[in-house]
Amino acid sequence: MAGVFLMLLAGNAFAQEKVEKWGIFELTLKGPSTGNPFMGVELLGRFTNGDKVVEQEGYYDGNGIYKIRFMPEKEGTWNYTITSNKKELDNSKGTFECTSPSKSNHGPVRVKETYHFQYEDGTPYYPFGTTIYEWPFQDTATKKQTVETLTASAFNKARFLAVPPYKDRYIDGPLRISVFPFEGTSSADWDFSRFNPAYFKNIDACVQQLQQIGVEADMILFRPYDKGKWGFDMMGQEVNKRFARYMVARYAAYRNIWWSLANENGFMKYVTTENWDELFQLVQQKDPYHHLRSIHNADNIYDYAKPWVTHVSLQYYNVVKTPFCTPLLRELYKKPIVNDEINYEGDIESRWGQLSGEEMTFRFWNALIGGGYATHGETYKTSPWISYGGRLTGSSPSRIAFLRKIVESGPGALEPIDQYWEINMAGKAGEYYLIYFGNDKLNKWEFVLPKKGLTNGARFKADLIDTWNMTITPIDKLFEVMPMPGNRYKFVEKNNASIKLPAKQYLALRIYKVADGAKVKDDGRHELE
Amino acid sequence: MAGVFLMLLAGNAFAQEKVEKWGIFELTLKGPSTGNPFMGVELLGRFTNGDKVVEQEGYYDGNGIYKIRFMPEKEGTWNYTITSNKKELDNSKGTFECTSPSKSNHGPVRVKETYHFQYEDGTPYYPFGTTIYEWPFQDTATKKQTVETLTASAFNKARFLAVPPYKDRYIDGPLRISVFPFEGTSSADWDFSRFNPAYFKNIDACVQQLQQIGVEADMILFRPYDKGKWGFDMMGQEVNKRFARYMVARYAAYRNIWWSLANENGFMKYVTTENWDELFQLVQQKDPYHHLRSIHNADNIYDYAKPWVTHVSLQYYNVVKTPFCTPLLRELYKKPIVNDEINYEGDIESRWGQLSGEEMTFRFWNALIGGGYATHGETYKTSPWISYGGRLTGSSPSRIAFLRKIVESGPGALEPIDQYWEINMAGKAGEYYLIYFGNDKLNKWEFVLPKKGLTNGARFKADLIDTWNMTITPIDKLFEVMPMPGNRYKFVEKNNASIKLPAKQYLALRIYKVADGAKVKDDGRHELE
Repeated sequence: MAGVFLMLLAGNAFAQEKVEKWGIFELTLKGPSTGNPFMGVELLGRFTNGDKVVEQEGYYDGNGIYKIRFMPEKEGTWNYTITSNKKELDNSKGTFECTSPSKSNHGPVRVKETYHFQYEDGTPYYPFGTTIYEWPFQDTATKKQTVETLTASAFNKARFLAVPPYKDRYIDGPLRISVFPFEGTSSADWDFSRFNPAYFKNIDACVQQLQQIGVEADMILFRPYDKGKWGFDMMGQEVNKRFARYMVARYAAYRNIWWSLANENGFMKYVTTENWDELFQLVQQKDPYHHLRSIHNADNIYDYAKPWVTHVSLQYYNVVKTPFCTPLLRELYKKPIVNDEINYEGDIESRWGQLSGEEMTFRFWNALIGGGYATHGETYKTSPWISYGGRLTGSSPSRIAFLRKIVESGPGALEPIDQYWEINMAGKAGEYYLIYFGNDKLNKWEFVLPKKGLTNGARFKADLIDTWNMTITPIDKLFEVMPMPGNRYKFVEKNNASIKLPAKQYLALRIYKVADGAKVKDDGRHELE
Repeated sequence: MAGVFLMLLAGNAFAQEKVEKWGIFELTLKGPSTGNPFMGVELLGRFTNGDKVVEQEGYYDGNGIYKIRFMPEKEGTWNYTITSNKKELDNSKGTFECTSPSKSNHGPVRVKETYHFQYEDGTPYYPFGTTIYEWPFQDTATKKQTVETLTASAFNKARFLAVPPYKDRYIDGPLRISVFPFEGTSSADWDFSRFNPAYFKNIDACVQQLQQIGVEADMILFRPYDKGKWGFDMMGQEVNKRFARYMVARYAAYRNIWWSLANENGFMKYVTTENWDELFQLVQQKDPYHHLRSIHNADNIYDYAKPWVTHVSLQYYNVVKTPFCTPLLRELYKKPIVNDEINYEGDIESRWGQLSGEEMTFRFWNALIGGGYATHGETYKTSPWISYGGRLTGSSPSRIAFLRKIVESGPGALEPIDQYWEINMAGKAGEYYLIYFGNDKLNKWEFVLPKKGLTNGARFKADLIDTWNMTITPIDKLFEVMPMPGNRYKFVEKNNASIKLPAKQYLALRIYKVADGAKVKDDGRHELE
């Protein structure tokens, strides 16, 4: 770990004296390097702080080095005891101080109020993710550029593969991969019983870099893209389990990790639904911090209702062609809906990579107005961001950043107000409304709202939002609502006001309460304009 | 049973000598009328025909009369033995002949190829249902009119309640209900341990009448509409189970029965998900003929993936606002999707009863193009069909009939051809395409099809369908397809033909193969126009 104070604990153990809350306490132990330390060694840390007791598995990092990475979730003094079936590792004890988190550290992301997320410390977290599947496997300059691009962007979650896909690119030439997750240099000589620590040190650095710039690492453990070459998609369930367990031991202490069991799991023909169930449960059991867990589908959709799935990570592009499909998924799963693959902005020949920036932005808005989330991807011939990272050239990222600002400046997560009937409206009933017109080119909007949460006489202000040109234009008018005569579902502006719209695509209205109805009545200030 | 030959079997048993396949063999037994015959009597028929053995429970029909209704699913000689814990009923034996089914009898409806239905004899069945919740509780003239209306309509499934909703209408005046499912005349004196046979004789007749006109009886066992008055929505699970068991004993032998466990089950606060699970399993276990089973939701959607649910019976109106939502549900459930409540055509003040005929028709097309089905309902102030039946006055039924004709004249159930990408197209890849333009007012359609199932040189004819004006206009042209240059997903007409459209709403194209590509090449007739 960079910039930490290491402490010699005993003849063969090193760790920090102080770690901030949700930081990584990393204990380094010297132990046996003979035999196969990946297979026979059990290593467990038991950490206590008052009532809090946490067990964290260690892992072998090569050259006789064993590590236990622990993420303290409580400030104060932690004591720990290490147990092992190997004498050299057994019975280490120690203590460290957990300090308050630094300013940019809000802890891991959790599910909040069934359909949304927040950081552990209560800070809102709205996932505006992007996709950079192979970024850990690129050259140093490209990785650096990817991190710089992300830093400058609004994206706060990145989906990427823990194991590279098979591509000719990685076999020959400057990007030849020589370090693999397992010992060996090709499918001819993998030793699936031995992990390759050098490989994972690169992944460590990638996860760490994302953490430093405030990006959640939505790390994909298994993937189908093997073309029958390397065999990483057909290792068998015992190896799959060992791999998953190693990954959890190694990465669970990173506060920004999310477990994505697979990308397009339906294409992994040798892993059954029962295998996925078992892998999910293993991750759930071994991760003491309960990071988010999901799986990304192709064809066969894994049952996201299963208890070990924390949120939906869906690939079903059409869901976000309208705002009303995400609310249906919310009803079905009662979990956050992240539309994690909605096609990509780009110009490639594959039809899933041909979205305009307008359409990508449109789909994001639909996801958010539906009470869910979406994940960006971009793949231009000249700049295949989803594959290698590097630079973003599309037109949607700035619009997605604009949307993120709007959401974050609102009173909380967007909730459909009246989901079956007002399909283009989300916000907080009675207080705040975001109304999205998408492809409709309207020249006006009648000031009518569903009655939920409204009081007679409440006053509102409104902003016209051009979601494409990224402008917010306050409307110079105060609106007062009253129950709509002859309609038991709605409130109407008392003078039947409407808002003029410029009759083009991609507009939205933001309507927010400035004075409560009852209050207005109480103090007699009932005249408006 | 009307028009059957009854046979005196023994001193106290009557039944028919001959019953057609999927007809009802009804055995009448005299037995004890003292005590409470609804509670203490076990009565089971064991029917055998060669290898086939079927057990069917009997039920008490009042006045010392017990009945066993059995639906023979195999022609030939059936032998049976009746067992009971009451001596008078025990050990009756007999035999009857099962003849071939009459022409209009195709047996019960089954799930076919995951997403569709067919009759047991292989005849296609596409559900075009309607909703007449309270029709069994109306006066004789209205019931007769309902049956006449259904006979003249294209509707082949009817959803209705087995127990009336609480309404003032049924308390006083000419429609006062005096016969209830349980003994007693009001909530003050129900005896939930005693069913009221007179009540069920009316339901018998209703199910039978629907059968006679070829309409499936989608009978709703439990409903919430009680307003705290009668208590039929809060009888407790033991009574619920007894009721369900009685219903299955009494109605399973009707080949047209479908079990709808509830309407808007989410509103039944006293019945838990676990209770529904148990009721489903009871129906599944007690119904020897395995009629279709589902449940209709409100708010909380029951998990249709559960193994005892045969199809989805959904109330989520927005699904059918587009064709692409039903395919998502197909993916999630791998079962037929019946959008059983999609709002109603009508003019009432409740917003769920305000659809235009155009919109109802539009929603039906969307459901079918999505590879699912929909159910009609109509509620005009002057004619609340969904409540009482009677006459249909809306404009959608004739258009739904038109749609049914189109579907039935096609080569089979409509399947999305390329569900993620060609969202308005269903049919049979390579052979038959129904392309629905809905609200889009197009002036032409480029003759481009997804490549699935197509061969170079295949020839097609096309019809322009006006789904609202119910016209089918053949297009006087032959179209020949070839792979689309530079596009790996599509075939194009070899002369880049397009079809002119009249730029209005609710159009569709029907495209069907008239000559195979390879064949055309083989016999050298390669010139087209």
